[in-house]
Amino acid sequence: MEFDTIAAISTPMGEGAIAIVRLSGSEAIAIADRLFKGKGKKRLNDVPSHTLHYGHIIDPADGRTVEEVMVAVMRAPKTFTREDVVEINCHGGLVSVHRILQLVLTNGARLAEPGEFTKRAFLNGRIDLSQAEAVIDLIRAKTDRAMNVALNQMEGRLSKMIRQLRQTILETLAHVEVNIDYPEYDDVEEMTHRLLLEKSQYVRSEIERLLQTAHQGKILREGLATVIIGRPNVGKSSLLNSLVHENKAIVTDIPGTTRDVIEEYVNVRGVPLKLIDTAGIRETEDVVERIGVERSKQMVKEADLVLFVLNYNEPLTEEDEQLFESVKEKDVIIIVNKTDLPQRIDMERVKQLANEHPIIATSLLEEKGIDQLEEAISTLFFAGAVEAADLTYVSNSRHIALLHQAKKAIEEAIAGIEAGVPIDIVQIDLTRAWELLGEIVGDTVHESLIDQLFSQFCLGK
Amino acid sequence: MEFDTIAAISTPMGEGAIAIVRLSGSEAIAIADRLFKGKGKKRLNDVPSHTLHYGHIIDPADGRTVEEVMVAVMRAPKTFTREDVVEINCHGGLVSVHRILQLVLTNGARLAEPGEFTKRAFLNGRIDLSQAEAVIDLIRAKTDRAMNVALNQMEGRLSKMIRQLRQTILETLAHVEVNIDYPEYDDVEEMTHRLLLEKSQYVRSEIERLLQTAHQGKILREGLATVIIGRPNVGKSSLLNSLVHENKAIVTDIPGTTRDVIEEYVNVRGVPLKLIDTAGIRETEDVVERIGVERSKQMVKEADLVLFVLNYNEPLTEEDEQLFESVKEKDVIIIVNKTDLPQRIDMERVKQLANEHPIIATSLLEEKGIDQLEEAISTLFFAGAVEAADLTYVSNSRHIALLHQAKKAIEEAIAGIEAGVPIDIVQIDLTRAWELLGEIVGDTVHESLIDQLFSQFCLGK
Repeated sequence: MEFDTIAAISTPMGEGAIAIVRLSGSEAIAIADRLFKGKGKKRLNDVPSHTLHYGHIIDPADGRTVEEVMVAVMRAPKTFTREDVVEINCHGGLVSVHRILQLVLTNGARLAEPGEFTKRAFLNGRIDLSQAEAVIDLIRAKTDRAMNVALNQMEGRLSKMIRQLRQTILETLAHVEVNIDYPEYDDVEEMTHRLLLEKSQYVRSEIERLLQTAHQGKILREGLATVIIGRPNVGKSSLLNSLVHENKAIVTDIPGTTRDVIEEYVNVRGVPLKLIDTAGIRETEDVVERIGVERSKQMVKEADLVLFVLNYNEPLTEEDEQLFESVKEKDVIIIVNKTDLPQRIDMERVKQLANEHPIIATSLLEEKGIDQLEEAISTLFFAGAVEAADLTYVSNSRHIALLHQAKKAIEEAIAGIEAGVPIDIVQIDLTRAWELLGEIVGDTVHESLIDQLFSQFCLGK
Repeated sequence: MEFDTIAAISTPMGEGAIAIVRLSGSEAIAIADRLFKGKGKKRLNDVPSHTLHYGHIIDPADGRTVEEVMVAVMRAPKTFTREDVVEINCHGGLVSVHRILQLVLTNGARLAEPGEFTKRAFLNGRIDLSQAEAVIDLIRAKTDRAMNVALNQMEGRLSKMIRQLRQTILETLAHVEVNIDYPEYDDVEEMTHRLLLEKSQYVRSEIERLLQTAHQGKILREGLATVIIGRPNVGKSSLLNSLVHENKAIVTDIPGTTRDVIEEYVNVRGVPLKLIDTAGIRETEDVVERIGVERSKQMVKEADLVLFVLNYNEPLTEEDEQLFESVKEKDVIIIVNKTDLPQRIDMERVKQLANEHPIIATSLLEEKGIDQLEEAISTLFFAGAVEAADLTYVSNSRHIALLHQAKKAIEEAIAGIEAGVPIDIVQIDLTRAWELLGEIVGDTVHESLIDQLFSQFCLGK
């Protein structure tokens, strides 16, 4: 396909050593060439593909030097977008990279929409839709495991499995079609029924297998929404600090959004915890005090994992009992902290209230029990889980929803076959399953969906 | 010089389309080659300089694929550091770029210190110290003008001027030396004195010329610390919003520091305003009310520019008079806002209190008067200023301090010549000036200073 030439800043906003303006399209090299002045009479139009060139960006309007740059020229089709791509590497200042972008735009390029480079890779057939989606996941990955899942998907593992299932359905439909056309043979009807049932059951079991990975896949991808609750002064902020200091914390402050919306991720043995309202906990315990039981209950509702802290050195209170009540339906770990002080808590009662939930004793002050806590978190979410590298996880909500729908369509087909409904009715269900699976890889998908999907990308990708 | 191989992430932290791990040193290509798997049997060790290579980063420990990458190979000496440089471009996720960095570090590279790449460019003689310092300025530039100043300095304009002055001093000293050695000639003493005086006066005037650009240079470089003051409900937050919306605002949130320390820059006709305590103003006027007159006075003290807002629709109060008193020594612009409402303010009294300071009438509600305000800001700081592109501004505090010291040394030499002190005493002062100027370009400079200078850089530069 032939598109216009797009450009955007492809490095994160902020001061850094390198910032990149990326161009893609048939005019990309010509536009860069107009602005570039290298050593001697070198023209970017003439250089070989996949080469780097030192020089300056000059404003053609007034001949002034704008920046010292290194320009990468990559010619179609062996590029990210399968189009001509130019990357202008400049010193990583905000002003200079914006000025280069402006020049590129006034000299013939159009500002790229978010994700438009990846969209072109998709539209030009280099990658399919699930691979494109994996690109976002890869960028947003918070842990190594999540990254492995995304990488596998980007390399096309999920696509391959989905395509094989679609192929199976297609072949089955074709086979049935042939048999319908030649009904003069004996036992055709019986054979067709048996084949349909077998193949449908196979597809269903494969979809189920994929869906089994979905829960963990989603956790890996999005992080476990985790809240720390407990009465004032039980050690909530100490727990938070322990988790953050023991592990690699990644604070994501998304540019353009309110400053207050900060998500803090902690990677606990491969489980990405998305810590909620850490700002509140961080400030002082006083602030937490103000939050109170009602607010805690609300936070618990939205959480995937609750870390409920009790004080070993104090008797249980009415508030504690209320908090126990609020978490009983949740994945919760009870942390009895301050074991360095004399016991005043009734542990029998704690065990009773905890029911089946794990209880970990800690002295955060003396750095005791943190290992056990991390072990408990990991066990809770990866009990018996296969290592991500060897498994194609389904982690994307869109894919999960489509797999569920496809499974439903297949189950209706199976029910139909078993009930002996006419084969052309069964065909409709199978075709529907085939189409739904096709939406995952983007073979059967609406343009508006494509637009919406790519708009989730960051600019310049 | 021969150094070990260093590596760092060279793009800003955050989610972006591209992240780069940069390596520099004699082992850079070999290390990258160990981790890289391209198409076929391609080895990075064998590729030509300044070429790009598509492939994957593989963990040699377990053979697993870590990321899909594009690797740029640049061989010494035509590189940023004059050493072999490799840049590994990956999808811009935090996890993947960190994983690649880890692999590079476990395979023979050392984590670079902040600014170490630029430091190597300096130590390897590609740039001098003032050019290296310009690299930081370029990255931190908040406006086009500031960028031009940095770019000029990076291209070596300031270095060239400083070197010429040093050369003049050196030749003069040499000349005097010769004359001292051959005192048998007539009128030698007189000639020497005249020459010394002439040359010293020339150097002084040149240093003075450079210092004259320093005030504006510093403003361009660091931004004008600007506060908005005024009683509650006069329109401070409207003014802030007008300034931000009419202009390109750059919010710099420096990673690793407290979230509260946010500097907001607004580029008003080339003047970078660093708006102080915008968070406080933004919240609500109520918050500002709490800040009160005392706090305002404190803020005014630290400001380069005060925007003092009055209400056209209300009589002047005791508070207003106090605020006038607090700003009388400052660069201040009086803004009489709400001219859309009936006049209740005594404009004669305002003029009296404003003394010579400019007064601008605005109706921020009706978007009136903003142009005039911006004009006033620009006039205040660039009255008669020559356009930055054509002038070598001195903007760096270190350079300014050294120029002042050099000027002082030259003045002492001149005083000595005029007082007829022995020439070898004058020589000492001149030599001192020569050394001080040398510190600007890094010809005569201590290692500890160099370390300290480069530590201001961001990682990966």
